Amino acid sequence: MNHFTLKQLNELSSRYRANLVNSCIGYKPCTLIASSSNQGTTNVAIFNSIVHIGSNPPMLGFILRPTTVPRNTYKNIKENSFFTVNLVTKKMISAAHHTAAKYEEHISEFDKTDLEPEYLHEFRAPYVKNSMIKIGCTYTNEYPIKENGTILIIGTIKHIYLENNILHKDGWVQLDKADTIANIGLDGYALPELVDRFQYAQPDQETKSLLK
Amino acid sequence: MNHFTLKQLNELSSRYRANLVNSCIGYKPCTLIASSSNQGTTNVAIFNSIVHIGSNPPMLGFILRPTTVPRNTYKNIKENSFFTVNLVTKKMISAAHHTAAKYEEHISEFDKTDLEPEYLHEFRAPYVKNSMIKIGCTYTNEYPIKENGTILIIGTIKHIYLENNILHKDGWVQLDKADTIANIGLDGYALPELVDRFQYAQPDQETKSLLK
Repeated sequence: MNHFTLKQLNELSSRYRANLVNSCIGYKPCTLIASSSNQGTTNVAIFNSIVHIGSNPPMLGFILRPTTVPRNTYKNIKENSFFTVNLVTKKMISAAHHTAAKYEEHISEFDKTDLEPEYLHEFRAPYVKNSMIKIGCTYTNEYPIKENGTILIIGTIKHIYLENNILHKDGWVQLDKADTIANIGLDGYALPELVDRFQYAQPDQETKSLLK
Repeated sequence: MNHFTLKQLNELSSRYRANLVNSCIGYKPCTLIASSSNQGTTNVAIFNSIVHIGSNPPMLGFILRPTTVPRNTYKNIKENSFFTVNLVTKKMISAAHHTAAKYEEHISEFDKTDLEPEYLHEFRAPYVKNSMIKIGCTYTNEYPIKENGTILIIGTIKHIYLENNILHKDGWVQLDKADTIANIGLDGYALPELVDRFQYAQPDQETKSLLK
């Protein structure tokens, strides 16, 4: 068994430590956040820090590092409050990864990859065309994390678009049917397959499958 | 294509909406958070809201709903500040799911499942024995999310334990080699397989694999 104490973690190279700490916390959602400046320059950037905040009202959150690449995302969201979250499929991983490259602000990652913007229902941020699960959000609040200068952005979900055949009759979305990707750390791309889905857990009752 | 507006989401049954909103945001890490009261009652509960906060200092966060089951987790963490995050493997999914059942405070989920507590290096919270990736944390801060009463807990990583053969020489952890599980929504369990790992993205350079 490998063991790292905090002291040992602090003594590692920053790259090794970033890989380790980012990958040891488990699989992360692989998403593209797209936005647009008021001047119309679009931006699309990979994020794997999306977290469920609540379903009533429907809200999601994500952690933003203001000093790194996704600052265009932050600037756009602050400017006009619109952004979209688009789940990455297997075919999109190479382009999705490339959106992390440090392009200047006036350059759109849509022009540097084969990702295509798509505008739906007059929403003021582009979606990513080939994504099979797309979420339109508006900025609701932000919580600066004083421990390291990151920011938790809270968005309200205004639209959800889902390809056919992945939505179950109780609202559950079978992500693996849409070839949805999960991230390992900052640079690993994995394709999950459903193992099981369980009934609501009750005290002293055995875990039962919903699939059988 | 299925489309839900916010108005339509608000009109859905709460169960349907919870399934939809929880599952459409992508795969989530499947973890067990374990803690102990000062009286020694252990608690272990499934969480899939772990999010990377930073690697220097190494910190993680998770979203806690204070009005639901995991409140024992919150109480314990506030009491003594120690907790562990344990990644769930395929063999553990049935027991991990059962920890969501609403047991009374004095009952330990370790006694109601085949999960076993394990104490390492005198850390004041139990780890989950069969987990192949275990993280020992201390409470650092909390951010109440005023929009819905949830809380973002920030923990500092004090220990990381990893089974052999999953740690690459640059610190990256190959989660699929440890049969690590990802969640879909609140009740789906999926097993990912690595597709690719990419080099650091550079402007105007093609995405290159690290594996070839």
